[in-house]
Amino acid sequence: MGVFITFEGPEGSGKSTQARLLYERLQAIGYPVILTREPGGTRISELIRRIVVDLRHTEMAPTTETLLFSAARAQLVSELVRPYLNTGGIVLCDRYADSTFAYQGYGLGRDLDELQAITTVATGGLMPDLTLYLDLPVEDGLRRKQVAKERSEQSAPGTTFSTPPEWNRLDARDLAYHQRVAAGFAELIRQDPDRWRSFSADQPLAELAEQIAHEVAPLLKRVTRLGVYQ
Amino acid sequence: MGVFITFEGPEGSGKSTQARLLYERLQAIGYPVILTREPGGTRISELIRRIVVDLRHTEMAPTTETLLFSAARAQLVSELVRPYLNTGGIVLCDRYADSTFAYQGYGLGRDLDELQAITTVATGGLMPDLTLYLDLPVEDGLRRKQVAKERSEQSAPGTTFSTPPEWNRLDARDLAYHQRVAAGFAELIRQDPDRWRSFSADQPLAELAEQIAHEVAPLLKRVTRLGVYQ
Repeated sequence: MGVFITFEGPEGSGKSTQARLLYERLQAIGYPVILTREPGGTRISELIRRIVVDLRHTEMAPTTETLLFSAARAQLVSELVRPYLNTGGIVLCDRYADSTFAYQGYGLGRDLDELQAITTVATGGLMPDLTLYLDLPVEDGLRRKQVAKERSEQSAPGTTFSTPPEWNRLDARDLAYHQRVAAGFAELIRQDPDRWRSFSADQPLAELAEQIAHEVAPLLKRVTRLGVYQ
Repeated sequence: MGVFITFEGPEGSGKSTQARLLYERLQAIGYPVILTREPGGTRISELIRRIVVDLRHTEMAPTTETLLFSAARAQLVSELVRPYLNTGGIVLCDRYADSTFAYQGYGLGRDLDELQAITTVATGGLMPDLTLYLDLPVEDGLRRKQVAKERSEQSAPGTTFSTPPEWNRLDARDLAYHQRVAAGFAELIRQDPDRWRSFSADQPLAELAEQIAHEVAPLLKRVTRLGVYQ
């Protein structure tokens, strides 16, 4: 069994960037590693993702949203995460079940026991070995995404630019909602402190990447390196 | 609160045709009635349906399938079924939660308690007032669909033809599976006989339609007719 590491945090905290940096670092030193994201990561999960994030789907019921996220997760776990962990590899995932608890549970007020039950079905009980939380005041995160959005709208089609974060249906919700989500993450960390490591997202990329690598290091002992790549 | 009637039965039993005949009959005599289907019936649910029935999605995990059906159902119930029942109308639905128990539970061997839990979340506990079961030996049903499929493949593009039943990913499963499904329906009927009425699907359309109308009649007393249409 390999190592399963997830990234969580509010919108715009830089999770995806840090996940990629860690992926590149581990790969460069010869670890068998894959990077994926939720919702998404497999062909079927990406199709589900398109439905969930579509800004036009304003009529989507909260229960539908929860079940769609869970369906995408079930496919990702079954098709990619579990098989890769079974080969002894490292799986990095940008968001996972904790996002369901934070966004649907604490954010939208869905029943947490119900969410837990559905999540257990979807994942077969698979939880991460380590969850890296990138902490950022909610207002700052939303501002970062807004800036990125405007910048991406202004740039000419075809302009190469570091991938702008998606501005989707979920971001359009109000500030109070995002604050409930942040409080939810804080509660999740409080309940299971051994699994979580929290970092300030408000620091230079490279510095944060070093801190993350430092926290991940102890888990790597149980992974066999493939050899050192160039 | 209106009346919620569902149609169930094996592949090719003629459920969809009978649902439409009942719909037309009720509408013609002035009842407020809508006809819908699962998975589908709303914009979002139809998008989900497309993913579930796609023949290319051979890698879909059983849990993913269950959660997608449930997501489509949650949206249908929340957006269409409940609101219409609340206006006092009649909702006819081609397949509903019983199909999940029969196909995913008895057919694919998924845990029935888990399915019940997910279904309760998806529907908020809404079950039909009456479920009409169209019974047909499994081999006959599959043969009917196969014939329809071949006929639809032979007809030239653009040919008008009564809509052929879909031949999709779910039909491609083996005969033994469909037999487990049929046994599952039998068990569901045994557990809740008051809700179910079973009919032989192997009889003339019009005759079966009469029998169905006869069974539905007592429930209509609680529905206010809108007036007699032409």
